Amino acid sequence: MDLLKQRILAEGFALPGNVLKVDSFLNHQIDPILSSAMGKEFAALFREAKIDRVLTIEASGIAIGLTTALELGTPLVFARKKKSVLMTEEAYSTQVFSYTKKETNNISVLKKFLPKNERILIIDDFLANGDSALGLARLVEEAGSEVAGIGIVIEKAFQAGHKRILDAGYRLEALASIKSLDNCQITFTD
Amino acid sequence: MDLLKQRILAEGFALPGNVLKVDSFLNHQIDPILSSAMGKEFAALFREAKIDRVLTIEASGIAIGLTTALELGTPLVFARKKKSVLMTEEAYSTQVFSYTKKETNNISVLKKFLPKNERILIIDDFLANGDSALGLARLVEEAGSEVAGIGIVIEKAFQAGHKRILDAGYRLEALASIKSLDNCQITFTD
Repeated sequence: MDLLKQRILAEGFALPGNVLKVDSFLNHQIDPILSSAMGKEFAALFREAKIDRVLTIEASGIAIGLTTALELGTPLVFARKKKSVLMTEEAYSTQVFSYTKKETNNISVLKKFLPKNERILIIDDFLANGDSALGLARLVEEAGSEVAGIGIVIEKAFQAGHKRILDAGYRLEALASIKSLDNCQITFTD
Repeated sequence: MDLLKQRILAEGFALPGNVLKVDSFLNHQIDPILSSAMGKEFAALFREAKIDRVLTIEASGIAIGLTTALELGTPLVFARKKKSVLMTEEAYSTQVFSYTKKETNNISVLKKFLPKNERILIIDDFLANGDSALGLARLVEEAGSEVAGIGIVIEKAFQAGHKRILDAGYRLEALASIKSLDNCQITFTD
């Protein structure tokens, strides 16, 4: 997606440790117009996949999950990283390690919001080692539903997540795919 | 907002302890169409206030903050409850106690995403004791900007937040105002 790639080049910062900072438009300050355009792009990519529901994870996945679900005409559900005291009902949960936060979270979704026999689109802002996306996929499968696809805003294709998701047999679509952040230079996959 | 009130009556649950559960459309599963309608409503209410930026807090404020910012044509910024390891730059921060989670968070926004001399619209999903909204207001004022309004999806008008916000001189708009949850019955303000 050219609009996104241009924005990454204009405002993104590659930092040592293969970190890409895009907090001016994606995950701290959010550009609603770009979010809306990305939702339309995901919807176009997955329209034929007959999605019943979009699943993401708090917090940075919510904006793009919402615009995607709006375009697809489905509900959005976001997994919580910490149970609310109000989440007293039965939930699916699994452990996920965050690459950027260097912490393990027990993510969960109430069972009533992940019914069985649905086709689920998983949306997230970043793909690094894939723990988050694969954790969400485990919740979907535990619920007896199907992962119809995984949509990622920015994937770091040189890290483990890209291959892990494809090896697991999931369809992966990234709006921007980064081949390398070596020497703090941003290089996209051709 | 009638559409929201009808939804609260149809799907909301009042629980002991003045808790209202609306996780089927607002803060776990999200209805994108309702979110979009609420964003339009907030934009209509605050259009004349010449908003430069919408400020909310992760996670449940993001969806409605996004749809509001999209309608107003402004950026959205969400305060973080926990600093990312990537947030190494200077930030405004303040302590906020969460009514539903019974925990204190040190919320923060990078200074570069809260410039001075702007008119800021604060958006949040719930108003109970007002700690979250007033915490966001402190960040805005520390930044040298003005709180042009506070927009809340559901306020529990019988709790302290409503009065605290008005006493502080802020303009408050709630899309649904609840007068009482006594005996686990939902009663709206007239």
